[in-house]
Amino acid sequence: MELITVRELFKEKEKFAGKEVTVGGWIRSVRDSKTFGFIVLSDGTYFETLQVVYHDKMENFAEVSKLNVGSAIIVKGELTLTPDAKQPFEIQATEIIIEGKSTSDYPLQKKRHSMEYLRTISHLRPRTNTFQAVFRVRSLIAYAIHKFFQERDFVYVHTPIITGSDAEGAGEMFRVTTLDLDNLPMGEDGKVDNSKDFFGKATNLTVSGQLNGETYAMAFKNIYTFGPTFRAENSNTTRHAAEFWMIEPEIAFADLEDNMDLAEAMLKYIINYVLENAPEEMAFFNQFIDKELIERLKGVAGSDFGRVSYTEAIELLKEHNDEFDYKVSWGCDLQTEHERYLTEKIFKRPVFVTDYPKDIKAFYMKLNEDGKTVAAMDCLVPGIGEIIGGSQREEDYDLLTGRMKELGLNEADYDFYLDLRKYGSTRHAGFGLGFERCVMYLTGMSNIRDVIPFPRTVGNCEL
Amino acid sequence: MELITVRELFKEKEKFAGKEVTVGGWIRSVRDSKTFGFIVLSDGTYFETLQVVYHDKMENFAEVSKLNVGSAIIVKGELTLTPDAKQPFEIQATEIIIEGKSTSDYPLQKKRHSMEYLRTISHLRPRTNTFQAVFRVRSLIAYAIHKFFQERDFVYVHTPIITGSDAEGAGEMFRVTTLDLDNLPMGEDGKVDNSKDFFGKATNLTVSGQLNGETYAMAFKNIYTFGPTFRAENSNTTRHAAEFWMIEPEIAFADLEDNMDLAEAMLKYIINYVLENAPEEMAFFNQFIDKELIERLKGVAGSDFGRVSYTEAIELLKEHNDEFDYKVSWGCDLQTEHERYLTEKIFKRPVFVTDYPKDIKAFYMKLNEDGKTVAAMDCLVPGIGEIIGGSQREEDYDLLTGRMKELGLNEADYDFYLDLRKYGSTRHAGFGLGFERCVMYLTGMSNIRDVIPFPRTVGNCEL
Repeated sequence: MELITVRELFKEKEKFAGKEVTVGGWIRSVRDSKTFGFIVLSDGTYFETLQVVYHDKMENFAEVSKLNVGSAIIVKGELTLTPDAKQPFEIQATEIIIEGKSTSDYPLQKKRHSMEYLRTISHLRPRTNTFQAVFRVRSLIAYAIHKFFQERDFVYVHTPIITGSDAEGAGEMFRVTTLDLDNLPMGEDGKVDNSKDFFGKATNLTVSGQLNGETYAMAFKNIYTFGPTFRAENSNTTRHAAEFWMIEPEIAFADLEDNMDLAEAMLKYIINYVLENAPEEMAFFNQFIDKELIERLKGVAGSDFGRVSYTEAIELLKEHNDEFDYKVSWGCDLQTEHERYLTEKIFKRPVFVTDYPKDIKAFYMKLNEDGKTVAAMDCLVPGIGEIIGGSQREEDYDLLTGRMKELGLNEADYDFYLDLRKYGSTRHAGFGLGFERCVMYLTGMSNIRDVIPFPRTVGNCEL
Repeated sequence: MELITVRELFKEKEKFAGKEVTVGGWIRSVRDSKTFGFIVLSDGTYFETLQVVYHDKMENFAEVSKLNVGSAIIVKGELTLTPDAKQPFEIQATEIIIEGKSTSDYPLQKKRHSMEYLRTISHLRPRTNTFQAVFRVRSLIAYAIHKFFQERDFVYVHTPIITGSDAEGAGEMFRVTTLDLDNLPMGEDGKVDNSKDFFGKATNLTVSGQLNGETYAMAFKNIYTFGPTFRAENSNTTRHAAEFWMIEPEIAFADLEDNMDLAEAMLKYIINYVLENAPEEMAFFNQFIDKELIERLKGVAGSDFGRVSYTEAIELLKEHNDEFDYKVSWGCDLQTEHERYLTEKIFKRPVFVTDYPKDIKAFYMKLNEDGKTVAAMDCLVPGIGEIIGGSQREEDYDLLTGRMKELGLNEADYDFYLDLRKYGSTRHAGFGLGFERCVMYLTGMSNIRDVIPFPRTVGNCEL
């Protein structure tokens, strides 16, 4: 079928003016008088809707006038510019083909629905303004991320989803199995015989692709992952999901400074890409979700990010300890209240906090010369706090295995990872960006359930 | 660190000629005479390697000369054009910093290793020529797919990985659970009490995002998915993996013709993108993996794909039944031998086979007017057979539920899917492209384990 999209019509209305066009879409509203009527039509390709005017010269005038919200139709007609009206043009329909009717009990009537209600109909909510905007922007952010890294010749690596290791260390894991839970094979020790499982051992869903990603950075220099990760954590908050996507670049022959430069360039690139490619959606968010959104994002895109060591940050925050629920002192982990205070009140722009105490960070982070801190970095942004976490990695075999011993980690589980430090090790660094957190940040949406098409949280795995 | 990549040097050698550059990379080989030596260096950004010349004026001349293959170094020196030599330029090193040594037992010595051996060191094999080429091309194909759909304003949808439905119907599933297998909660019926599991019920890994994807096509018109899918099938072949990525576009207000047009345009776009952006890698595959690769791909990119109905295809194949292990007759499913015969011998180009008997296809495919066949399409390509499978979907509520009853499917499991046929249903279509099969097709690699960074197959889940 030769259909024109609503996006094409808006982008090139001059070209189509006075011409006959055919558009397919879903009815947002119909109102009719005796001899003519108006239809507001959405075809999902553009945030703005299309106005269709139809007349009683049509055979099915009465039938069209009775169509319910949500019905699918194909409209043929002439595009007429309407410079004096609210909308820039309309279609004077000569024919309307009814593809599929809707019903009067269609769950999305023309009124405001609560986010909570819309979550119960995740298969229909993308038809609303809010979720049209959210999920188109989500798609654009994903593409901006690929585009950013590919333009810089990074290699996209699909790290595995099912992992035989429980050594990723970032959280509670989901078990993956083909064993029949009602009829488990038992070993002689009275425990489940995992050797009978699909992979010949117990396997889980990944919590991070980083360790695998590092192996590819040691071959391609610059790589990134972009895939789903999982946490089986029993936390029912607005910011946690059991299944979410993560981007994890890893760069070789690079240190913490290079890592921060990369993270800063990436965030600015994403923001600019979305502001440029989804202006209608961003204006909608700014009007209905968060009045300061666009100003804040433009501020981030236009400022040089601050850089401050954890030790300095603690000194700065200590002066305001009376304003915090949790008082800070050297050695403590930063809470969201501290992070937001740093970026919103003290720096008034995004800021990297670097060189955290080694005891509050992961084993693979590079030990600094002070012997107390590691070359970690967290990127804090106004309105949210931490959005990116990363580090330079410990490339020294002896220091790394020493740290693993301190923490009681089993070296055999990390053979492949230690090989990287035996065979041509080099300074390298990387970070992780939670994709959904990034979408929340760019849209102003405050609940992670509303930026994931079909969210998975404790007790919730619908559709 | 301000490093220039080998890719940049090759792309702009004139610009760098006579200038001092700094490059980090890994040693592929070293050979020295008394007063000078040669290093072949790879930094992973470009398929070609960099020649470095170093001299005994360097303090660490002896140490450098003893470096093992795989060592990481940083080289400073002047880029000198060498128009008469095999390589277009070399670096006359003034300084070599040793980042990380390798050892004499480095598993990748300068010789041919078997694919089987390299599979046992999946963390190191991307350092070899073959896997440098495979995994850069894999990355480029992934990007080409995003680029193709985004340029056409398709919305990228992350359909869920963990699913509460076992209704996707495409194969054996992996169970996902947080229950302690050694201490399962039992219900009164003596069976495992799945209500105690993380999501309050039994959940599995997805086998297809299509049904979820359709819900988004009914909101955005044109969408695509690109994510991991899973099959717990006990098949140990060169073409099956338990974890693989799939692309599933879905288009609304579109029929089977539109679907074929889209698939054909996509395949041609991917091929052209890779030929243009990875000429060195493709030349390597053509020389060492498959001598007809580039000619075949150019043929596909340059030809109009054939289109033939299943019924006509059966008539054509029947004439050659003496050449087949499995004889064809109307109603049978096509085997790879038939598919390849059609595309390689009869059509001598890619061909879509359409309108298969309904009994060998899925329940959601649109019934044709003949009542016997469905609007399915398989795309067959020379050298491999089926690479894409898709269909127009049944948009009629009564026909769809009728077909589900015939097949004994439980309607309650498909409530959300049937809603799409109640509220503004429209003709729509989609297809699935197995990403790894696509990578195999474009690289000539014959084992799926060699196009996945960390492959998962029966009994194998390493790293």
